[in-house]
Amino acid sequence: MRIIPSAKIRAYLAGFLDGDGSIYVQLKANSSYRYGYQVAPYVVFFQSSKERQVFENLCSLIGYGYIRERKDGILEYIIGKRSDIKEFLSWIKPFLILKKRQADLMLKILDFRESIKSEKDFKVLMKLIDNFRELNYSKKRKIRTLTP
Amino acid sequence: MRIIPSAKIRAYLAGFLDGDGSIYVQLKANSSYRYGYQVAPYVVFFQSSKERQVFENLCSLIGYGYIRERKDGILEYIIGKRSDIKEFLSWIKPFLILKKRQADLMLKILDFRESIKSEKDFKVLMKLIDNFRELNYSKKRKIRTLTP
Repeated sequence: MRIIPSAKIRAYLAGFLDGDGSIYVQLKANSSYRYGYQVAPYVVFFQSSKERQVFENLCSLIGYGYIRERKDGILEYIIGKRSDIKEFLSWIKPFLILKKRQADLMLKILDFRESIKSEKDFKVLMKLIDNFRELNYSKKRKIRTLTP
Repeated sequence: MRIIPSAKIRAYLAGFLDGDGSIYVQLKANSSYRYGYQVAPYVVFFQSSKERQVFENLCSLIGYGYIRERKDGILEYIIGKRSDIKEFLSWIKPFLILKKRQADLMLKILDFRESIKSEKDFKVLMKLIDNFRELNYSKKRKIRTLTP
């Protein structure tokens, strides 16, 4: 548990995420996982790599995750650890406007994930994850099935 | 003079502008203006038009300007009136991180603009405006001259 940032900083971060961030969960096919998929949740902030220094200052306000540079020169600040995502979203959720539904869905998924006991439960989880596609307006809509 | 929004709302708006907004001044060639150019300052927020309703809620927090939809489906919330820009930037500047320099430059330009008495002054203004190109990393760099 970290020290909770001030309300002003949390409001700023909510605004930044609403403007130029993303909340989503990837299902990665991986046969070494029990139900054939790895569940990978993400909260990501984007920025041009020309602003690396200031972006790093900004990210240090958060204190989780890591920065990676994409091939197209865009910096991504990625929070991928489940406990970090839960804590971070619970901090900024009261201030979110545009991505409030995504934050709610993410928290629901992370909670549900911990209670999974069967393949049936995992299918419910996959359905929940699929809701991100509509919220985030992804054009690619993959049809996934569980490994037989 | 409007009622100043709470610090939390101002911090949120600063975050949103840092993430997905733009601060710039356009010089538009126009012979009906004294020095041959119209000086058009802008503070703009961007959003996908699929989020119109929530975006409108967000913009109503600000209370200035207007929303327009671009041909590519992007919504722009535009603050273009000088007095509005001055007031708005003075509100959110303490919370800006990535676009603090652009906000400072804009306020400097708006102040300087009011003191212009000669063509020489106007050339200084044009130089000031040119600094946005570096801050905003515009690829197009126009060379402008005053009308003879």
